[in-house]
Amino acid sequence: KSQTDPSAAKVQELHVYEINERDRGSPAYLRLSQKTVNTLGDLVPFSNKVYTGDLQKRAGITAGICVLIKNEPEKKGDRYEAIYSFYFGDYGHIAVQGPYLTYEDTYLAVTGGSGIFEGVYGQVKLQQIIFPFKLFYTFYLKGIPDLPAELLGKPVVPSLTVEPTAAAKACEPGATLPNFTD
Amino acid sequence: KSQTDPSAAKVQELHVYEINERDRGSPAYLRLSQKTVNTLGDLVPFSNKVYTGDLQKRAGITAGICVLIKNEPEKKGDRYEAIYSFYFGDYGHIAVQGPYLTYEDTYLAVTGGSGIFEGVYGQVKLQQIIFPFKLFYTFYLKGIPDLPAELLGKPVVPSLTVEPTAAAKACEPGATLPNFTD
Amino acid sequence: KSQTDPSAAKVQELHVYEINERDRGSPAYLRLSQKTVNTLGDLVPFSNKVYTGDLQKRAGITAGICVLIKNEPEKKGDRYEAIYSFYFGDYGHIAVQGPYLTYEDTYLAVTGGSGIFEGVYGQVKLQQIIFPFKLFYTFYLKGIPDLPAELLGKPVVPSLTVEPTAAAKACEPGATLPNFTD
Repeated sequence: KSQTDPSAAKVQELHVYEINERDRGSPAYLRLSQKTVNTLGDLVPFSNKVYTGDLQKRAGITAGICVLIKNEPEKKGDRYEAIYSFYFGDYGHIAVQGPYLTYEDTYLAVTGGSGIFEGVYGQVKLQQIIFPFKLFYTFYLKGIPDLPAELLGKPVVPSLTVEPTAAAKACEPGATLPNFTD
Repeated sequence: KSQTDPSAAKVQELHVYEINERDRGSPAYLRLSQKTVNTLGDLVPFSNKVYTGDLQKRAGITAGICVLIKNEPEKKGDRYEAIYSFYFGDYGHIAVQGPYLTYEDTYLAVTGGSGIFEGVYGQVKLQQIIFPFKLFYTFYLKGIPDLPAELLGKPVVPSLTVEPTAAAKACEPGATLPNFTD
Repeated sequence: KSQTDPSAAKVQELHVYEINERDRGSPAYLRLSQKTVNTLGDLVPFSNKVYTGDLQKRAGITAGICVLIKNEPEKKGDRYEAIYSFYFGDYGHIAVQGPYLTYEDTYLAVTGGSGIFEGVYGQVKLQQIIFPFKLFYTFYLKGIPDLPAELLGKPVVPSLTVEPTAAAKACEPGATLPNFTD
């Protein structure tokens, strides 16, 4: 980061899909508020599958927790504070924190990473496709070396019907990142 | 960040007040320890209102969770690990993590941000004015472009009696940040 | 961070031990899944003691929470998402986030810090010695001034039998960091 122009650092875009295939017992909605409507006090640990933006490879998982902040009936949705990581097998992970609104796209902070993401900073755009089962993310990453080509495939345009390839879903050889996280 | 002098980056100070006006159902003290005294195991999701340091504008909210670490009877207070964000409407958010002591000022880490706070790092001083209803924060921010003037008004000196302007409390036009978070 | 070579920043290694001496009521395993086996939904607030890598001085504590992500019976262990801080008394703290696997070493992200760790980034290697009572960490830190000598003593090689000195365990004068966190 340069003192004269903090925004001058190189930005790398990284696209991933997060998909809940309903086979991980996620999310775990903990209704600790003991109210019938979603209320501050509720907590939502979760872990879904992550695929590369081109949907050709299983990358890994998400893992973390959403803190219910506010039910917004006029918007037919909820505001959460989300604290979680994206796992990319041997490549490492990216940690994020910020707003998750069930009714609107948001930007979260990239707070750090490991492996090839060591020292990363920036932000990530969260786009909801089908609540809460299919999400598309665009990371704007700074502070790290050039990303490997297999993470940079042309992303499939988000739509209700997008699906990973059958090979990626089945985690077949060649259709995962090295030692994909599960 | 320069290798030769990591501390050379420009620091911008940002002041905000966090005020619990008791209208958000916050905090939600989850006594998961099932003990009568505050004990490790208790969790405290919370969300309060944020005003600019000059108390002229409603900025947004805080949102996150405190993890009770230790009750300290000799200090008549508690140690928490706090993980939360400050929201500033269209300007974006700042994520923080660190100590919250109910009996003493502390410094938390600024772990990242979005919008005008994309790429931010540094620390923030937390000063408690009236536990747990009124707090004053001084952010020491690096890595971001110059902050907009409306965030940089002369801060009101913290005291028991400070209050936002009536217009800011009422979120009147001109007395909020653009699309203030609520 | 230089645009041309983000990895060029100076790295400082910092070693610490985290030891659970079973006197802090930690961890608090919250079986919120209400299942008999560890399951997504369970949360684990914790706080253990931290010693310098040479085991000559009590540094402070860890404080935070682990989110149970997945029980892995074939590995006889669990995957957690860990969000916590390391406290070093007057020196400040380091915040981290990432994977904690009970059966394998991992790398977590360093997301920020306070005091002498203000502006820190990088990653930290977590090595488990005796689950869940004795862990060894190697931080790879960037973005901060040179660490003080008392943090940089030659680390004791991790083994089942390593223990802090009696003076450090007893927090005797000269065997703690200044105002060590407790």
